[in-house]
Amino acid sequence: MIHRPLARFLALITLAFVVAFPASAPAKPAAPPQKRLVIVDDDMIGFNGVPLLLLQAPDVQVLGITTTSGSVWRDTASAYALRTLEILGRTDVPVLAGAVLPLLNSAEATKRWEGLYGRLVFKGPWTDYWPDGTIQDHPGANDPAYVPDLPMGNPKTRPGKEIAAAFLVRMVREHPGQITLFATGPMTNIAIAQSLDPTFAANVKEIVYMGGSLLPHQVLEGPSAEQFAREFVNSPRREFNIRWDPEAAKIVAHAPWPKMTMIPVDPSTGTQWTREFLDSLAAADTPLTGMMRTALPPGFPMWDEVAAMVWLAPDIVTKAETLYIDFETSQTASYGDTLSWTEAYRPHLGERAQRVILSVDRGKTEAAMRALYMRSGGK
Amino acid sequence: MIHRPLARFLALITLAFVVAFPASAPAKPAAPPQKRLVIVDDDMIGFNGVPLLLLQAPDVQVLGITTTSGSVWRDTASAYALRTLEILGRTDVPVLAGAVLPLLNSAEATKRWEGLYGRLVFKGPWTDYWPDGTIQDHPGANDPAYVPDLPMGNPKTRPGKEIAAAFLVRMVREHPGQITLFATGPMTNIAIAQSLDPTFAANVKEIVYMGGSLLPHQVLEGPSAEQFAREFVNSPRREFNIRWDPEAAKIVAHAPWPKMTMIPVDPSTGTQWTREFLDSLAAADTPLTGMMRTALPPGFPMWDEVAAMVWLAPDIVTKAETLYIDFETSQTASYGDTLSWTEAYRPHLGERAQRVILSVDRGKTEAAMRALYMRSGGK
Repeated sequence: MIHRPLARFLALITLAFVVAFPASAPAKPAAPPQKRLVIVDDDMIGFNGVPLLLLQAPDVQVLGITTTSGSVWRDTASAYALRTLEILGRTDVPVLAGAVLPLLNSAEATKRWEGLYGRLVFKGPWTDYWPDGTIQDHPGANDPAYVPDLPMGNPKTRPGKEIAAAFLVRMVREHPGQITLFATGPMTNIAIAQSLDPTFAANVKEIVYMGGSLLPHQVLEGPSAEQFAREFVNSPRREFNIRWDPEAAKIVAHAPWPKMTMIPVDPSTGTQWTREFLDSLAAADTPLTGMMRTALPPGFPMWDEVAAMVWLAPDIVTKAETLYIDFETSQTASYGDTLSWTEAYRPHLGERAQRVILSVDRGKTEAAMRALYMRSGGK
Repeated sequence: MIHRPLARFLALITLAFVVAFPASAPAKPAAPPQKRLVIVDDDMIGFNGVPLLLLQAPDVQVLGITTTSGSVWRDTASAYALRTLEILGRTDVPVLAGAVLPLLNSAEATKRWEGLYGRLVFKGPWTDYWPDGTIQDHPGANDPAYVPDLPMGNPKTRPGKEIAAAFLVRMVREHPGQITLFATGPMTNIAIAQSLDPTFAANVKEIVYMGGSLLPHQVLEGPSAEQFAREFVNSPRREFNIRWDPEAAKIVAHAPWPKMTMIPVDPSTGTQWTREFLDSLAAADTPLTGMMRTALPPGFPMWDEVAAMVWLAPDIVTKAETLYIDFETSQTASYGDTLSWTEAYRPHLGERAQRVILSVDRGKTEAAMRALYMRSGGK
């Protein structure tokens, strides 16, 4: 059985290790202006060491983790984040709980939509259906406040009192032009922050997000790749993070970020967690690599890991394009679909140019990830 | 400059020659029950020898050609069909003029839609925009009744007096269960026939149509392939024939055909008319091959040719899938988009199973086409 949540943490672990152990020799923390400031906004942190390691890194400072519903309800996402920080001894990193529900989308609207346009494949906590033979077992959950026991034990710490969007606004006001937003879930918190403060987006350094879908194809063989392809093969413009909260995504797409990088589903289809890759980490016999080799089931695309590596090791990118991007919010067949145009065809209705990552080199990506995971064993 | 119309006729020529010169030795026409009866419904017949050749074929009988607006206005499509029949000496094949306008779509609605969702790439006679550097020069035309001078001369014959849809209904009533509908344009006539007579679809033998788009990728390199990819790379579910008349396509998708075969854009992306292919026909120095080599510009995908070959030489198909198909008719981002589902996800709202051709073997397709074109030289 494959658990989606257990796979999600790896992107952020990757992020963590790269910034924690950069190619240059470890040094004393640089002065704040030299650090790369980042806030991670995510719907599912999983067993995630990112915050601690980013904070220890000489050139990166994680200002906080903001959580949102998406793959799981927000409180479960917060619990994963908190527990991970406890395990890593970095409870000084604040976890800020954000949106429980999307801005406009709802379980009821989703049911109605499915009656008109067919069943969605993955619906996060609203998931109530898997066809026979599905190897994924991510269950839905009716009560947003219910937090299941976590596989790595339950947290004793609590989220900060500040609401995620307020934290985002405050941090950006304190560090104008300095903060990278790294978003790997639905963008509800970010949309609320922009709605709270119209100067928010312009004062962020850049936004990097995993979301959307352009023209993905099933690249790899095997039952896992085949089953994950169900999410796009008959709906190439639909991707869960956006489909959970299309209105938030549209607000974000129209906001004046100085730089936007979209990592859609497309580049992940050429990647996959494999037993071979996990076993190759054994040479560094650390708690991290040991945990990864036993706890992580092969088969998942490296959705968020690819996003992290695009930010950390840009030379993995083999194909990228500048496109004008928007998201459809009419409650019709294309609700939540990614809309894209070249300059010659765009409607000029507030959509903005984004750098869209279309493919990455799998070998380079894995090598860079492996080096980071192995390097962590040296500590 | 590449003329879309000039390229369209080749699918039907292919169809013509295969049935005109089957692998078995020519024989006296078989009794009617043994013939494969076909009606061709198309928006752009071009310099097309299908009707005559099909009628001469021992195992196929073309009952008529019905025309519709699409790539060009209906009257222009009719003129191409008539002139082609004159050149081929087969004016006994009836040409029946059909729909001038789509059921619901209009130039005004298209303009409004483009204001909301961006410019369409190809709009048939409504085309009013090509970005700089476009090598296609297909112009729009304001007056549906205006017929330009044809490159092969203008016809002296006229269409039959019967309206296309009435002809379709009458023929199917006369030959229940016997007729293949081969549709390569918007499906307005076919939808009207089904609306005229609810028993129409069930009494057709099968329908084979070029239309829709599933998940096409640019397969070939070069400026032509790159420019034709504009039609799908940012709108993978949009295809012109369906987008011209989405409501007609939806009526057809819901009708109870005994068998439906969809040839979407997808298999055509791996095909292209090349100079090499055209030159290879020189060994058969016939009026047909001579005309093809001089009149046909390389670069076009073999849209309708692939559809014809799927019907005539099914072993060219390398990937096909049975999917439930419908078409979106809401006037939103996805107006005219192809909707598809596997059994496990479909909405059960009248959509039906179709055989969808996803790819063909280019070598086999070209070889079969070449053999047919060359064989024609033997006559």
